[in-house]
Amino acid sequence: MPELRKDPVLGRWVIISTERAKRPKDFKVAPEAKLISPKECPFCPGNESATPPEVFAYRDNNSQPNEQGWTLRVIPNKFPALRIEGEIDRRGEGIYDRMNGIGAHEVIIETPDHSVDLADLELTAFEKVIYAYRQRIIDLQRDKRLRYVMIFKNFGAAAGASLEHSHSQLIAMPVIPKRVMEEMDGAKRYYEYRERCIFCDIVVQETKSRKRLISENNSFIMICPFAPRFPFETWIVPRTHISNFEDSTEQQLRDLASILKDGLSRVKKALTTPPYNYIIHTTPVTLKGIEFYHYHLEIIPVLTHVAGFEWGTGFYINPTAPEESASYLKNII
Amino acid sequence: MPELRKDPVLGRWVIISTERAKRPKDFKVAPEAKLISPKECPFCPGNESATPPEVFAYRDNNSQPNEQGWTLRVIPNKFPALRIEGEIDRRGEGIYDRMNGIGAHEVIIETPDHSVDLADLELTAFEKVIYAYRQRIIDLQRDKRLRYVMIFKNFGAAAGASLEHSHSQLIAMPVIPKRVMEEMDGAKRYYEYRERCIFCDIVVQETKSRKRLISENNSFIMICPFAPRFPFETWIVPRTHISNFEDSTEQQLRDLASILKDGLSRVKKALTTPPYNYIIHTTPVTLKGIEFYHYHLEIIPVLTHVAGFEWGTGFYINPTAPEESASYLKNII
Repeated sequence: MPELRKDPVLGRWVIISTERAKRPKDFKVAPEAKLISPKECPFCPGNESATPPEVFAYRDNNSQPNEQGWTLRVIPNKFPALRIEGEIDRRGEGIYDRMNGIGAHEVIIETPDHSVDLADLELTAFEKVIYAYRQRIIDLQRDKRLRYVMIFKNFGAAAGASLEHSHSQLIAMPVIPKRVMEEMDGAKRYYEYRERCIFCDIVVQETKSRKRLISENNSFIMICPFAPRFPFETWIVPRTHISNFEDSTEQQLRDLASILKDGLSRVKKALTTPPYNYIIHTTPVTLKGIEFYHYHLEIIPVLTHVAGFEWGTGFYINPTAPEESASYLKNII
Repeated sequence: MPELRKDPVLGRWVIISTERAKRPKDFKVAPEAKLISPKECPFCPGNESATPPEVFAYRDNNSQPNEQGWTLRVIPNKFPALRIEGEIDRRGEGIYDRMNGIGAHEVIIETPDHSVDLADLELTAFEKVIYAYRQRIIDLQRDKRLRYVMIFKNFGAAAGASLEHSHSQLIAMPVIPKRVMEEMDGAKRYYEYRERCIFCDIVVQETKSRKRLISENNSFIMICPFAPRFPFETWIVPRTHISNFEDSTEQQLRDLASILKDGLSRVKKALTTPPYNYIIHTTPVTLKGIEFYHYHLEIIPVLTHVAGFEWGTGFYINPTAPEESASYLKNII
């Protein structure tokens, strides 16, 4: 059973992952994505039995679960960071706190095609990926032990992907993570002071100044944020106030698919297929329709190394101004 | 002039580093440490003119500044993240805040020997490195614009080192960084509740349980912390309460050199010379002798990739329990 432990100074939780237990020799070679053929790939059609049974799929009407005939498939992670079975069982060890690692860890296999990048997926298939994200959150929010559902994608070995076949991940947690709490707290302080949502204000200012605007559609703007940690860091922010991703309309989900595909294509072209992460920053599933926080998506190309200064300070040194990153990404296509 | 910008939601500052300005093509190849010969190395004896003039050195009595004859040399970074000249000049841009990047960014060249690792430096030379850290903080704390001095080391390209010749760095900043504030706040809350320093309590519990203890001497314990973000993360904590690193006694500095050398040697042997960062977490120079915070040093071997989940949550998935890491590091020598 994985274990959640809390840093007694910072209040930061870590997952001690017993499913992935590693000894020193496992680290002696840098972890790289395994380049495996479709025949061996557990995410490829025909190999459905190599994964845990699926929890959701888009498939042909006459096909059966855990067999071929799917266009998108969601499965529990074979080596989960958190497990769905068991009790939370909070307990101490002297001054320290721990609990069992209860939660869900799922993989969204975005396409049956082993070698296509998400950026190059057809728009209708890309929309299915976004629909699947919403479906899984709606399903998991019924489990009252879970307080937060995080959707993210790691692309490329340097961004943490261990398999090449295009996929994203979902982790549902029994605690609201520190970073989410910090964002909520910051946004709440701004709201208390101005009675406006800070993300709504960001949309107004960025749409007006256009200095950091990459592109836009009816529902979203895509910008490089004013104070980015990383070169070419890119945010997609809904134009109108919406706190929870899973409460998006069909039209908003389609517009998100379209602008995210556009953003990933620009990053791919500008930086020659860099490793990247994206993350949906949304409101905890236990809160709905709040006024001060506004969901958004952050894309982080992995171009620099996080070093001692960043670890020590939480400060980032970014060698590329967001105005330059935005101008470059805007003009690339 | 570098610029400091504040994220309006999180309050996190970033440095937009104009001295290191990078365009998309600069990122197309992964940044690796340049392997250069001693002849070309700006940190090697004989090449003193390739660096900005030194601000501190240990050298032979009959040698001149910026010439050969030194055993340790501190120089301003040639491409500083922050600059010492100028005014802070806080200003807004609509809802955003920025200021000039005032501060100091120095390099501590730990040895004249191009090819020796810090872990393998003789103890007397290692002690000089620690003395130099203190000297530079004491000098910089007289500049009233500066609120925090961070000492850190990046070893290996994957840990952010851009030159191979053994060195550490110092960045002095006009703001107290977010991560430091969070640690101070967390420690203060604990102190208000228990009237004890949390780091003193960690020393008591870890010394008693010995489960995560790697080694110890008269002044310090070396442990894997209870809730580590990374495999083999290692902390060195003073046994007796001391808030500011620069207020250490000579004996404490010698004991720090000895246990840090021991720790780096164990990490090197256990993990076959991995890239690593270490960071001195200390109290802001504007605060002295506080009761609730206790300086310490954190060593982070770079063995895993930070991925989407960590960026989104501030949560870390660690595949090695600290009890196992500690047991391994304890028994390696």
